[in-house]
Amino acid sequence: MYSFKNDYSEGAHPKILNALIVSNMTQEKGYGNDTHTNNAISKIKNLIGNKDIDIHLISGGTQTNLIAIGAFLKPYEACISANTGHIAVNETGAIEYTGHKVITIDSNAGKVIPQKIQEVLDVHTNEHVVKPKLVYISNPTELGTIYTKEEIKALSNFCKSNDLILYADGARLGSALCIKESYLTLSDMCNFTDAFFIGGTKNGALLGEALVIRNENLKENFRYHIKQKGALLAKGRLLGIQFEELFKDNLYFELANHANEMANLLTEGLKELNCKFLIDSPTNQVFPILENKVIEKLEKKFIFYIWEKIDDTHSAIRLVTSWATKKEAVLAFIHELKK
Amino acid sequence: MYSFKNDYSEGAHPKILNALIVSNMTQEKGYGNDTHTNNAISKIKNLIGNKDIDIHLISGGTQTNLIAIGAFLKPYEACISANTGHIAVNETGAIEYTGHKVITIDSNAGKVIPQKIQEVLDVHTNEHVVKPKLVYISNPTELGTIYTKEEIKALSNFCKSNDLILYADGARLGSALCIKESYLTLSDMCNFTDAFFIGGTKNGALLGEALVIRNENLKENFRYHIKQKGALLAKGRLLGIQFEELFKDNLYFELANHANEMANLLTEGLKELNCKFLIDSPTNQVFPILENKVIEKLEKKFIFYIWEKIDDTHSAIRLVTSWATKKEAVLAFIHELKK
Amino acid sequence: MYSFKNDYSEGAHPKILNALIVSNMTQEKGYGNDTHTNNAISKIKNLIGNKDIDIHLISGGTQTNLIAIGAFLKPYEACISANTGHIAVNETGAIEYTGHKVITIDSNAGKVIPQKIQEVLDVHTNEHVVKPKLVYISNPTELGTIYTKEEIKALSNFCKSNDLILYADGARLGSALCIKESYLTLSDMCNFTDAFFIGGTKNGALLGEALVIRNENLKENFRYHIKQKGALLAKGRLLGIQFEELFKDNLYFELANHANEMANLLTEGLKELNCKFLIDSPTNQVFPILENKVIEKLEKKFIFYIWEKIDDTHSAIRLVTSWATKKEAVLAFIHELKK
Amino acid sequence: MYSFKNDYSEGAHPKILNALIVSNMTQEKGYGNDTHTNNAISKIKNLIGNKDIDIHLISGGTQTNLIAIGAFLKPYEACISANTGHIAVNETGAIEYTGHKVITIDSNAGKVIPQKIQEVLDVHTNEHVVKPKLVYISNPTELGTIYTKEEIKALSNFCKSNDLILYADGARLGSALCIKESYLTLSDMCNFTDAFFIGGTKNGALLGEALVIRNENLKENFRYHIKQKGALLAKGRLLGIQFEELFKDNLYFELANHANEMANLLTEGLKELNCKFLIDSPTNQVFPILENKVIEKLEKKFIFYIWEKIDDTHSAIRLVTSWATKKEAVLAFIHELKK
Repeated sequence: MYSFKNDYSEGAHPKILNALIVSNMTQEKGYGNDTHTNNAISKIKNLIGNKDIDIHLISGGTQTNLIAIGAFLKPYEACISANTGHIAVNETGAIEYTGHKVITIDSNAGKVIPQKIQEVLDVHTNEHVVKPKLVYISNPTELGTIYTKEEIKALSNFCKSNDLILYADGARLGSALCIKESYLTLSDMCNFTDAFFIGGTKNGALLGEALVIRNENLKENFRYHIKQKGALLAKGRLLGIQFEELFKDNLYFELANHANEMANLLTEGLKELNCKFLIDSPTNQVFPILENKVIEKLEKKFIFYIWEKIDDTHSAIRLVTSWATKKEAVLAFIHELKK
Repeated sequence: MYSFKNDYSEGAHPKILNALIVSNMTQEKGYGNDTHTNNAISKIKNLIGNKDIDIHLISGGTQTNLIAIGAFLKPYEACISANTGHIAVNETGAIEYTGHKVITIDSNAGKVIPQKIQEVLDVHTNEHVVKPKLVYISNPTELGTIYTKEEIKALSNFCKSNDLILYADGARLGSALCIKESYLTLSDMCNFTDAFFIGGTKNGALLGEALVIRNENLKENFRYHIKQKGALLAKGRLLGIQFEELFKDNLYFELANHANEMANLLTEGLKELNCKFLIDSPTNQVFPILENKVIEKLEKKFIFYIWEKIDDTHSAIRLVTSWATKKEAVLAFIHELKK
Repeated sequence: MYSFKNDYSEGAHPKILNALIVSNMTQEKGYGNDTHTNNAISKIKNLIGNKDIDIHLISGGTQTNLIAIGAFLKPYEACISANTGHIAVNETGAIEYTGHKVITIDSNAGKVIPQKIQEVLDVHTNEHVVKPKLVYISNPTELGTIYTKEEIKALSNFCKSNDLILYADGARLGSALCIKESYLTLSDMCNFTDAFFIGGTKNGALLGEALVIRNENLKENFRYHIKQKGALLAKGRLLGIQFEELFKDNLYFELANHANEMANLLTEGLKELNCKFLIDSPTNQVFPILENKVIEKLEKKFIFYIWEKIDDTHSAIRLVTSWATKKEAVLAFIHELKK
Repeated sequence: MYSFKNDYSEGAHPKILNALIVSNMTQEKGYGNDTHTNNAISKIKNLIGNKDIDIHLISGGTQTNLIAIGAFLKPYEACISANTGHIAVNETGAIEYTGHKVITIDSNAGKVIPQKIQEVLDVHTNEHVVKPKLVYISNPTELGTIYTKEEIKALSNFCKSNDLILYADGARLGSALCIKESYLTLSDMCNFTDAFFIGGTKNGALLGEALVIRNENLKENFRYHIKQKGALLAKGRLLGIQFEELFKDNLYFELANHANEMANLLTEGLKELNCKFLIDSPTNQVFPILENKVIEKLEKKFIFYIWEKIDDTHSAIRLVTSWATKKEAVLAFIHELKK
């Protein structure tokens, strides 16, 4: 059965595996001080166009979130997240384990808007309540929606005015940046946030996220935080080689673009069948609403999440495409649906 | 320059890389529910000869230590470690970050002995002090020494009598088990401890440690702990494939054996030159004492740690061999020393 | 100006101060091992009619909550609270600092109902999300409402069926138990919860809450938790003497009853003036809705919280009475309002 | 039986109790915003001669230590303490619970010396180990010894040069400052440390320590930390009234002086009997070495700690005097010993 369940069902892009093989027997320094990590960081800095940023390669998204947020906040400070945010609902209380409250706000199709942050600030004004200090967003969101350049700029300005840290979870960032209508670049992400990460795991790597820290105040001794959380890999080269390859010859964006195209193909096919959607997602997650009996039939040939009950006879499902999704599989899915 | 600095300077054993390639495009479930992880766990259970143990694959040693110890202890409980133990001196306070004190005791050549534990128990008897609950050992120790079967059995009995958890860090466990004089097997490690881990990173894997939990009381909901600490890899297959390969056809022990042999070759060569040693280590770490001016010359051709000052003109260095160490490099080192 | 702002504006009931004086120069053991603490605990056990419970005297409500919840939960477990609950909104993230998420649910006039808990359980079923384990209620609630015996029994049954700990914050418990219509006794509170506390600070003591633990599984080594959180007072006698006095001659309930009567007097007076209320509170917190210009005038003679904006010209205020509230002050308030 | 076991066996100095009674029915603001707390803080600031310091009143010593150290350090930073330090041996891992390692060094009769700190700094130089950031001292030490002005100045200079925070636990500070030979004043304590606390519990108060923060960088939002740790008393007046009284008319120093005089009387009496001492303590703790059979007899009439075994027939005991110690009791002890 073909799986549209997530974007981490396959291994790594072949170029990455090849790079692992080519470099394998060369001795390198440990703990991220290897030549590949240095190269990868240089490439990303060049692409962003800022040499003053700090970049750290970390194994996964939850790990990056907990290290970054745990490092950025003082004990009594809290983060604000959409109630759909990954740190709020899908990380087994990892942020709370670092001691910090996650204040949730109603999301606008997965997105955080300044007005809702303001409402939180209005009721957190003394020492009997936590001090909201960091705004967590994900781009794309957990619902596949994206921030336009204007939206993220507005958030950035709001955060600066209110002395808040803006932090973006980019587990699927490639997919967001490949949507032209967002007019958003990697440089924008860097300029508009205090820190964000560039997801590798869901875009062709075996594992790895590149955390970018722009805000000078958040940089100090960051490697201590990584080591303390058990996340400083002895063979840091494994992360370095992968990001080196992803940011060589534009591979990162090619892969994200492919994932988006496959999602578009799904969406187009579904629309032709007059399918409705839970949400209008331009990225690599698609949320069609189908009849339950149709879903049951599809489940015999495809794997996917049943996302949400809509009514007694309909549910929304989630279909995720990736760098590895085959066009034939998408067409087969649409074909099956037509039947 | 050839490096004897550690056992993680190269990538992975070629068989592992090959397995990654072969399996790469097959879709697998995420988060360690893939077929490779299941296979790897089966193989290890078979080898240990115990189907009732739980096994979890985790990226690195510090991460495994902090997840396991953080999961096993109640807030007011503490661990006891040799003052040379990795958790005591080399993990940036990772255990303390989980809230637990690490009580250090003088080590016997890196090893923990019951008498020293008893001294700790004697002065921790009420609620004004922490309650010692877990004994941390590493085998081999950070000084390359190993526990004999008798020694670890005595520790085990002592811990059982005193309601203490015995936990073993096996970052270099392969190397210890390949020393015949220890008469210690993987099954023994399992039977004599409540939990221990089998190191992959330092024995041919890109990353990965296999945590084995035998004590029934320590198993419950362990995956929650892994996820909360950010250590549940989306592509858990990466760990599964590697341990599957390591425990196929005895590869794990072959690699460890090679590392030991290269260390022996070094030791023999050094002894022929009448070199003294800081400690008598049978495993893949060798600690010769050399004249400082000799060390300076060696440093022009080889990379290694200067471990400890001995006197004004001598220091002990640490030479580490691994599955990837080339015999020629060892011979070249001895040859250089002869000059 | 007379304050109706809270129930901790004055010192302690004179009988308590007298008891402090009488016992002052007698030498006692430290850390809660004194005769007064032992007496106080015996009295409370007798009153509850259960000799097998554990009782610990702790300085304040937030402190009791964080010690108890921190002790009762494993790292990945979470508590469920009404979104109006004190631990959710008024403790500066104290529970999160102990590492645990507080999942909030919509409250029914400040109260938790099984249906809302069930909804949380339904979406927390695997290791990617926290495991809800403890239900936090306050009785009376932060809105002054109370649980009837039937309501708390239903909650208790629900929690038992779902392997959840039921924990009650009784910062103002006396006030709740003195409402006859609740048909609820101290014994009921003990039987229906796994642990709860009897508030002293807001009912005549200088400071102090008596934590009662009935569930055998939650008792072990609890004093270690108290000491570790810095809450084991050297002069534990201070807490012991106060609870000894509060539970001698029914003083605790007399004081709570007085607070309720004063609140009733306020409510009756307000009703005569056709005042509406934000909520129907039978305990010592009253929430009348008044015209803003009336509030402004009242503020010149009385101190109270403006609780919530109702519309452009009206707000709800909070008036709190206590053991120390003078009848004359209540009458003066009503008198002022009549003008 | 008369107890010399500690300095918290009695209640509070009568003047303090009287002040509680006098102020009892006056309504005050909660949470330390009352007039008494403000007065107490003013008095201490005046005495120290520095208006720019921050002062917070907190219930107990362990609580003050954990709040202060938890607030002052970043997650990867550690404190250095003498191996006899209260935070190292007597607080049930409270500091580790806040996430920070306590690095212990050999003490010089309970005191920390720069050379030992330097040795710690020398081996903590990268992200694989914690970053030592705070030096914890107690004055007097747990062995009753005191720092001279010169000693504490040297420590202060060393800490400044090495970017370390110097923090002093003053649980028995009054006793230290009343030793003229130390030439140390409250102002000195303030100038030479970044923060320290003035102990009330062991010098006549029911409970309470006054934390003084001089270093500007450590002051921010400190009340949030206090609240989050459950230590912001609703009736903060209880602490305010006591410190107001202690620092009115020199009471604090009178009480400490009395404790010292009683200890001197004990020491002199013991010396006349040719008694030897474990350590030469000028403050209110005395450590005579006595024959075990003598100790057994004394235990029938007096309560005290047996501190340490000296040899098969001798042990050191600890005798503690306080503001409440009666001269007759001291004389009776000496008299008993003569027999």
